[in-house]
Amino acid sequence: MQKGKASILLEHPPYIASAASIAGKKEGEGPLGSLFDLVEQDGMLGEKNWEAAESQLQKKAAELAIQKADLKPQDIRYLFAGDLLGQLIATSFGLMELEIPLFGLYGACSTFGEAISLGAMTVAAGYADRSLALASSHFATAEKQFRFPLGYGNQRAYSATWTATGAGAVVIQSQSCPGALAKITGMTTGKVVDFGLKDSTNMGAAMAPAAFHTIWQHFQDFDRDEKAYDRIITGDLGTIGQTILLDLLRKEGYDLAGSHMDCGIELFDSESQDTHAGGSGCGCSAITLCSYVLPKMKDGAWKRVLFVPTGALHSTVSYNEGQSVPGIAHGVVLESVGMP
Amino acid sequence: MQKGKASILLEHPPYIASAASIAGKKEGEGPLGSLFDLVEQDGMLGEKNWEAAESQLQKKAAELAIQKADLKPQDIRYLFAGDLLGQLIATSFGLMELEIPLFGLYGACSTFGEAISLGAMTVAAGYADRSLALASSHFATAEKQFRFPLGYGNQRAYSATWTATGAGAVVIQSQSCPGALAKITGMTTGKVVDFGLKDSTNMGAAMAPAAFHTIWQHFQDFDRDEKAYDRIITGDLGTIGQTILLDLLRKEGYDLAGSHMDCGIELFDSESQDTHAGGSGCGCSAITLCSYVLPKMKDGAWKRVLFVPTGALHSTVSYNEGQSVPGIAHGVVLESVGMP
Repeated sequence: MQKGKASILLEHPPYIASAASIAGKKEGEGPLGSLFDLVEQDGMLGEKNWEAAESQLQKKAAELAIQKADLKPQDIRYLFAGDLLGQLIATSFGLMELEIPLFGLYGACSTFGEAISLGAMTVAAGYADRSLALASSHFATAEKQFRFPLGYGNQRAYSATWTATGAGAVVIQSQSCPGALAKITGMTTGKVVDFGLKDSTNMGAAMAPAAFHTIWQHFQDFDRDEKAYDRIITGDLGTIGQTILLDLLRKEGYDLAGSHMDCGIELFDSESQDTHAGGSGCGCSAITLCSYVLPKMKDGAWKRVLFVPTGALHSTVSYNEGQSVPGIAHGVVLESVGMP
Repeated sequence: MQKGKASILLEHPPYIASAASIAGKKEGEGPLGSLFDLVEQDGMLGEKNWEAAESQLQKKAAELAIQKADLKPQDIRYLFAGDLLGQLIATSFGLMELEIPLFGLYGACSTFGEAISLGAMTVAAGYADRSLALASSHFATAEKQFRFPLGYGNQRAYSATWTATGAGAVVIQSQSCPGALAKITGMTTGKVVDFGLKDSTNMGAAMAPAAFHTIWQHFQDFDRDEKAYDRIITGDLGTIGQTILLDLLRKEGYDLAGSHMDCGIELFDSESQDTHAGGSGCGCSAITLCSYVLPKMKDGAWKRVLFVPTGALHSTVSYNEGQSVPGIAHGVVLESVGMP
């Protein structure tokens, strides 16, 4: 196994056997709308409250990913999952009925990267034949958790991002299969990075240094640069975070202008959908990976990508106590199944 | 590698090279008081607020565990850590300065079991030479997060437990060393278990079914029973949860009356310290393991224990929305270094 300071290349890369994306109505009206497995027209998903709705997103994404891989829940050994809510309630209540051993994760909006990393590591080590990695967010639960009551109708800063409603799930397994979407060949695990930014309505700027650090570390660890990748895909930096990331990398001699993609920029049409700097939330990168990126890898259009979801590590308590908003980003290397 | 439905026995068990326990004043006045590495007399730890104090607990526990193993932060490849607060702010802000790749975990009060499991799995698989597993809780941050403002001085139910102030950390490494405390030989990963209990002031009862399930599953997976263990150690069931756990296991033919120990019952003298059903919080099982259990294993007084921290998966939001309090419990098998 090849290792760098914060990175691993797996000797026996596991496969993504299937992926499922469940999106909200607004996400369904965006540029990727036709690619999602399911677009929920009702933000409540028939439930009594938003949190229960987000739990439904998780449940549906997990069940659909399992079904698409032609499996049953008992075929999955471990769940690696998380969401943005205090004490991960969307995850705990959403995945309960599956009765699968659960590792609850919190990496803010980087959670899907953390989940895929650990899911792939456990499968590659032989601890599990199959794991399921999953993450969700919901616009209304996130606004309630982090910002203002929706009924208050506050104005949003232009630097703010729109928390995506959606859940993405991938089945990770040791063996390839006819429908396999990609291989997970490595990972670079992020550390907490804090540039001291305190504006929680500008999370792209808060997270860009973490994305920078993980991508830079990845390049150092394997003596690679941007040319090794068809795309380097961050989670939810949005337009402001993207500018900062590209600037920071340029100063280190890396030009990602042609290869960088941000799920938050892809998910919405910022002009017609009034989403300002872009999309965000664990669900943003999760549904973009599952609906858009992985199919492109299956088709062979992209041979190798670095997927780097980015998280802003703050809570209303830390914010109100005057703390900064540190970031974290977890990188995962995905390669076409056909790659040697 | 021997595997059961939810369990693994590791082929190359990693070692706990060192352990650190930082406790609060009240914990220091309890039965285990003389065993802790450090007893903080000031609940604020010199910080401006309780959350920053809890971050200090994490930082001090991590640094002390690293120092006791005669290492430097850069010798640790991964941190596996969590706390009880929304968005894990104690962890994110507490461990930032270490600059070590971080997997943020949330398993409520079971987090130390989750962290040791994943820390040991990554080391045993060769992904890391050394990981650090860590968990914390703080009475005041938990009361503020989950219950009432401290100044309100509400009465506490007799079924309630007292959230421990403390942080515990262990350095897990692939090679043994002169001071090694124990080997981590296996783990049984818990699923979410919900018996429908809705009383968040009786978390012992809410978590007992999860503890039962993990212990029962562990016995099934390896065809073992309580006789295989010197102690089976739950995290924070307290006196009420203990009664329920022993009852549930007795119905399945297992008698743990002689071998069960609960960290929440050990940590405080319930009569003189007015802690009602016992101690709780991630820190409760973490500091009890690090200060009391691991030294007993090093001395050879206990050869093999099953450590099963238990978590109650709820938030004030889920509680206020009328949801139940499901539980989860993650089991870890610890054996004396001298065991074959």
